Amino acid sequence: MDNLGIVFLSELVGTALLVLLGCGVVANVALTKNKGFGGGFLMVTIGWGLAVFAGVIVAYNSGAHLNPAVTLGLVASDASEFGSGVPVNVASVAAYIAAQILGAILGATFVWLAYKQHFDQEPDPASKLGVFATGPAIRSYGWNLVTEIIGTFVLVFVVIAFGAGRQGENGGLAALGALPVALLVIVIGTSLGGPTGYAINPARDLGPRIAHFLLPIKGKSSSDWAYSWVPVVGPVIGGLLAGWSSAFLLPILA
Amino acid sequence: MDNLGIVFLSELVGTALLVLLGCGVVANVALTKNKGFGGGFLMVTIGWGLAVFAGVIVAYNSGAHLNPAVTLGLVASDASEFGSGVPVNVASVAAYIAAQILGAILGATFVWLAYKQHFDQEPDPASKLGVFATGPAIRSYGWNLVTEIIGTFVLVFVVIAFGAGRQGENGGLAALGALPVALLVIVIGTSLGGPTGYAINPARDLGPRIAHFLLPIKGKSSSDWAYSWVPVVGPVIGGLLAGWSSAFLLPILA
Amino acid sequence: MDNLGIVFLSELVGTALLVLLGCGVVANVALTKNKGFGGGFLMVTIGWGLAVFAGVIVAYNSGAHLNPAVTLGLVASDASEFGSGVPVNVASVAAYIAAQILGAILGATFVWLAYKQHFDQEPDPASKLGVFATGPAIRSYGWNLVTEIIGTFVLVFVVIAFGAGRQGENGGLAALGALPVALLVIVIGTSLGGPTGYAINPARDLGPRIAHFLLPIKGKSSSDWAYSWVPVVGPVIGGLLAGWSSAFLLPILA
Amino acid sequence: MDNLGIVFLSELVGTALLVLLGCGVVANVALTKNKGFGGGFLMVTIGWGLAVFAGVIVAYNSGAHLNPAVTLGLVASDASEFGSGVPVNVASVAAYIAAQILGAILGATFVWLAYKQHFDQEPDPASKLGVFATGPAIRSYGWNLVTEIIGTFVLVFVVIAFGAGRQGENGGLAALGALPVALLVIVIGTSLGGPTGYAINPARDLGPRIAHFLLPIKGKSSSDWAYSWVPVVGPVIGGLLAGWSSAFLLPILA
Repeated sequence: MDNLGIVFLSELVGTALLVLLGCGVVANVALTKNKGFGGGFLMVTIGWGLAVFAGVIVAYNSGAHLNPAVTLGLVASDASEFGSGVPVNVASVAAYIAAQILGAILGATFVWLAYKQHFDQEPDPASKLGVFATGPAIRSYGWNLVTEIIGTFVLVFVVIAFGAGRQGENGGLAALGALPVALLVIVIGTSLGGPTGYAINPARDLGPRIAHFLLPIKGKSSSDWAYSWVPVVGPVIGGLLAGWSSAFLLPILA
Repeated sequence: MDNLGIVFLSELVGTALLVLLGCGVVANVALTKNKGFGGGFLMVTIGWGLAVFAGVIVAYNSGAHLNPAVTLGLVASDASEFGSGVPVNVASVAAYIAAQILGAILGATFVWLAYKQHFDQEPDPASKLGVFATGPAIRSYGWNLVTEIIGTFVLVFVVIAFGAGRQGENGGLAALGALPVALLVIVIGTSLGGPTGYAINPARDLGPRIAHFLLPIKGKSSSDWAYSWVPVVGPVIGGLLAGWSSAFLLPILA
Repeated sequence: MDNLGIVFLSELVGTALLVLLGCGVVANVALTKNKGFGGGFLMVTIGWGLAVFAGVIVAYNSGAHLNPAVTLGLVASDASEFGSGVPVNVASVAAYIAAQILGAILGATFVWLAYKQHFDQEPDPASKLGVFATGPAIRSYGWNLVTEIIGTFVLVFVVIAFGAGRQGENGGLAALGALPVALLVIVIGTSLGGPTGYAINPARDLGPRIAHFLLPIKGKSSSDWAYSWVPVVGPVIGGLLAGWSSAFLLPILA
Repeated sequence: MDNLGIVFLSELVGTALLVLLGCGVVANVALTKNKGFGGGFLMVTIGWGLAVFAGVIVAYNSGAHLNPAVTLGLVASDASEFGSGVPVNVASVAAYIAAQILGAILGATFVWLAYKQHFDQEPDPASKLGVFATGPAIRSYGWNLVTEIIGTFVLVFVVIAFGAGRQGENGGLAALGALPVALLVIVIGTSLGGPTGYAINPARDLGPRIAHFLLPIKGKSSSDWAYSWVPVVGPVIGGLLAGWSSAFLLPILA
């Protein structure tokens, strides 16, 4: 298999695992009769953080971007190649992002299978959608966008500027290491996740939203496409800003 | 003592510790008057994750399988020897699995002793059984099986494909390391543990269920043998699928 | 850029990130309608601990003081230079502390932006102030001071005496490492944070309090300047005592 | 200062810090008006675990026993010297244990100072005693003893047999490392702490109980001396059994 094929498979498997475990914790907390029902926001943030941990472990070979905001942030930082020795160009960027979105759809499908009976018996359609896609606590597209930009900036800035700088390699989440990334994702959740549920990753939100739209989920609502651009555009802006900032600050700080 | 004897003792002690600490946290949360009563699902998942951490530390010499699904997954992955230098054959597989089940019975017995007064004063027989064995939130054997297969697949796939690949040794949980395995078990709990209580380990469920059946627990119910095949068969299927997948994906991804 | 300029920028960015994530978790837990509303004190302590983790990662180049009590503690410990090779003198101490306070103001401003709608809709002015600045559970300036002194002493004593001693370099939080510091901050929160909300850092309290005073926050109260000296003076005393103690104990214990 | 003097100081400081942070989290959760009031059992177990983490860091020079059960377990395991190069004899054992108990009294005194106003305003004397000393959920000296023996056995067995064996040095908690010990103490708390509040350390219980007896705490009850032997005798038995077991199993397992 050529390098781009390995990247595709690696990002696909890693993002699938990330979304299976990340959306899974929301299912456990939000869907009726689960043993973790009502488990609280801290449990959700720990679940998502460790979901990223697992995803990074299995996607080391592609540098574990697992997130188009990370891929685009690396592009903006003027990286010449991704962690895996793949050159930065239109084809490789497209391979990363396509694999991430497909992996997220796949992971979300397995969440639905693992929690099938709980989806069937859940009376509230909003809880079902909430397992797949983020939504704002107070709907206000402009401010929701600001929150997503800030959260994603923190993720990508710390990962690129300091992961890459320290370890002498370009790359994604893998450059910082699985445990530091997990802790970083936990704290972004606890600290910046209140207003929008912290997508901070276009694939993590769009992929499962597509799965919600396509899957025959009993008693589901609309997939709230009106909001769907916020958790895509916000993280992309945040990632790009972080990439540009790190290109400027990296020579000074790291 | 010969190699197989060391493996047997190592897996016995490791699984006993795992079950003592794992079933122990359920006893603390579920049995009346305990200081941790009602401590929540996050506490249960952290307790189980760190129980595996402790078990892995003491069972390094046998590679710390602690779980027949891991042992069988390694067989399916075409490993030629287990982490300890023991060849993969019928005798060694039998030694691993027998030690795991016996260790689990032993560990569950110590849980009963540590919480003796709380078992005696607990009015609800279902809470007592729940300390020992898993049970479904919504009883549906087929879907419960699916959930257990998915959860075990995640555990064994990450451990075998990426633990083994990275560290140049075959082996069980020890190949990934005690802390990464603990974090992985925590997130499987938070994220896939809602519907069935995540046995993801035939020994962890069958051993304590046997202990529940044999021990003179005051006011106990039946041991729910009707469900008992699900947390055995599901994890075995999940482990085998993970082993086969990793045999295919390992050369590409790790 | 000269060394003092790098230190200034490093401490500015690190403290801004620390305060963004630290005050952010309080906003999530305390402000109406947030997804983490009512998330509990454990979530707050984990959020603050990991906020320090993130701050330490990005401020390695200046040794990651991020806290005037750490800077002054190092001075009191008779260090001849800070971790970054910058000599200990009036100019460098001033650069550290000015950057920390400015960074904290900056971080607090981003918290306000990330949670803008929740500040606007929050009816209780005390909850708004609580996002920015600490306040005592029982107002008693003398005893509040004692609590802050003890908490800061623990932080600075462990960091200076054992971080520096072990790693053969002077320096701040970076000398102990990002993860150990995070765990230390979590436990200071869980264990000594009850009476005053554990400022244990003059910049962390004064900077956001200034931001609260200056920003056009809808429906805000006064900034409680009457209490503001406690979380400045207490941590300074605690840091100095820790520095002197470590100068005495370091040759014996570390 | 001679070696025994260093050991004494190291264990004194380490145990004081352990008890300050360990009893501190109970004060936060149990005493009226605290910001962490009602924070739950998981927070208590995390606080105690990280309290041990901090204590181990500062007491590396003496091997960080911090617990007479660890010291006596090492004696029972036939160690010829403690981690610090101090020979195992009556004088050194006495120095370790005296320092541990004195350190615990000191640490408990600082908890009282840090939470002074909350002790003064707390109406329930049992909550005050509970900050200092453990007590059983169901009083039954025999079974309470069993629980303490099992919990301490797990601590000392894992630490001695596997810490020492792996790292080629005798010693206490430091031989396993600060983070693994912290995780081990967390899981002993979550999983075996329900019935008795897991003293698992005679100094941790006796020292603060003496402090409770001596300090002029407003409105305090008796110090429950009738129970006080259980958290001393149980951990001593558990530690000795663990030492003997590890002497037998160490050559096989580690």
